Amino acid sequence: MATRPLIRRLCVIGVGLIGGSLARALRERGEVGEIVGSGRNEENLRAAVRLGVVDRYDVDPARAVIGADVVVVAVPLGAIEPVLRAIVPHLASGAVVTDVGSAKGSVVADVGRIYGHIPPNFVPGHPIAGTEKSGVDASFSTLFQKRRVILTPLAETAASAHQLIKRMWELAGAEVIDMGVRHHDAVLAATSHLPHMLAYTLVDTLARLDDRAEIFRYAAGGFRDFTRIASSDPCMWHDICVANREQLLEMIALFGADLERLAAAIRNDDRAAILDTFQRAKRARDNLYLD
Amino acid sequence: MATRPLIRRLCVIGVGLIGGSLARALRERGEVGEIVGSGRNEENLRAAVRLGVVDRYDVDPARAVIGADVVVVAVPLGAIEPVLRAIVPHLASGAVVTDVGSAKGSVVADVGRIYGHIPPNFVPGHPIAGTEKSGVDASFSTLFQKRRVILTPLAETAASAHQLIKRMWELAGAEVIDMGVRHHDAVLAATSHLPHMLAYTLVDTLARLDDRAEIFRYAAGGFRDFTRIASSDPCMWHDICVANREQLLEMIALFGADLERLAAAIRNDDRAAILDTFQRAKRARDNLYLD
Repeated sequence: MATRPLIRRLCVIGVGLIGGSLARALRERGEVGEIVGSGRNEENLRAAVRLGVVDRYDVDPARAVIGADVVVVAVPLGAIEPVLRAIVPHLASGAVVTDVGSAKGSVVADVGRIYGHIPPNFVPGHPIAGTEKSGVDASFSTLFQKRRVILTPLAETAASAHQLIKRMWELAGAEVIDMGVRHHDAVLAATSHLPHMLAYTLVDTLARLDDRAEIFRYAAGGFRDFTRIASSDPCMWHDICVANREQLLEMIALFGADLERLAAAIRNDDRAAILDTFQRAKRARDNLYLD
Repeated sequence: MATRPLIRRLCVIGVGLIGGSLARALRERGEVGEIVGSGRNEENLRAAVRLGVVDRYDVDPARAVIGADVVVVAVPLGAIEPVLRAIVPHLASGAVVTDVGSAKGSVVADVGRIYGHIPPNFVPGHPIAGTEKSGVDASFSTLFQKRRVILTPLAETAASAHQLIKRMWELAGAEVIDMGVRHHDAVLAATSHLPHMLAYTLVDTLARLDDRAEIFRYAAGGFRDFTRIASSDPCMWHDICVANREQLLEMIALFGADLERLAAAIRNDDRAAILDTFQRAKRARDNLYLD
């Protein structure tokens, strides 16, 4: 006798790298009955059907969510509010909604504005996974294997909704961790949002030099790794900057002050300070990874 | 009848990642008769003999260079001057000397100070290769395959010496390019020295936060790639900062101004400016690499 899947009907709004990979993973595990896709790019949705990532799609999210027991809003942060506004009146009773936004404070604020309160069946979430690629073509079922998913449930969040979303991500292969909203946004500002700002800025700085062609020609292997994240989706990262403005600016200021301090050490030939900085950083990096 | 190897006796001072890999490559190609190692770390030199990277070693570089037709000084930039001072009186007549330093202006200045002029048989060089690892254990014969080596010969450099070093690197698998000293240092400040400063500073900034353990726990794949170069040898990079001070400071200032401009755009909610920056950077990065 077949066991019941965790989710009878899953609606994924934004069938890109994250939404598509989650759909693939749940499908592979047999943990979902039907998958309905939605999103603004119909060509991408057609590809999602062709690839078997979703069973069907509706470009109108309000129609796509009808009868779904779980709705995953996997659109860029700036599109979460309009999508939620569109779907809320059409959600099935008891439907659980989650998102995958890289900042959580702005999403919780969006939700509060739309509902006038924090609804029990909304679970803010953020899978710490992804590549610099985007679109359903880039999705794959093992994206979340051994990756962390952070959920930031609120006081108002129903335990049942929280547990369902936790279980969903675990079935996709992830380790699920709970965290406070502000703390999540601070941690991500440091480990993800700031590095992306540095990579984008570095490539842009060099690209605007007069001898940029010459300069890029001599970039070695380290440069390739270092700048990979500068190939990430500009719109998605624009939205993250806007959504996590305060904490990101704080991290940029911290980093800027430290870079200025290093520059001063180089300028003043303070060799001990230069060496100290590099040694501390190498120790921290080596403790973190074995590669 | 066996053809004569390019180099009868090669002396490598500093048998680390670069010196060791060059020795391995030339040995594999049968283009070197005997390889003599030297350096400050006798344990590393013993390992080099054990691994077959060098035939023998002498911790005293003045003795190690005796009878060598090519001497490769593969020590950190700060050690080049004392090494050159030690070996110059003991070089065989006609011996060609080259280095592998990541900055060339300081090396040429060192050479000028030691000789009182630029000698015809010194060829400043810089292989654009390496990993974040160091020591002879990390060396491998294919390190220079399809990598670029920049030579910065001077007006005084003998064509024969230049051609010999060019041929040596080509036999190790590299593409050899000539460049002016200042131009080399500007290009490297942009593509290599600045990114290392950013990676070291980022890791150090995060490592000094109160919740650093927590923060590093949530670092994703992008962070690993982005910070890999922060595992590079702190002493080597200290020397590079000192050697290429002027051009590095110029690049840090350019970058810092651009980062401040991005921060201002985020602060002022100038969404067009944010998006422009990211789009320009992504285009430049995508044009550069296909990964």
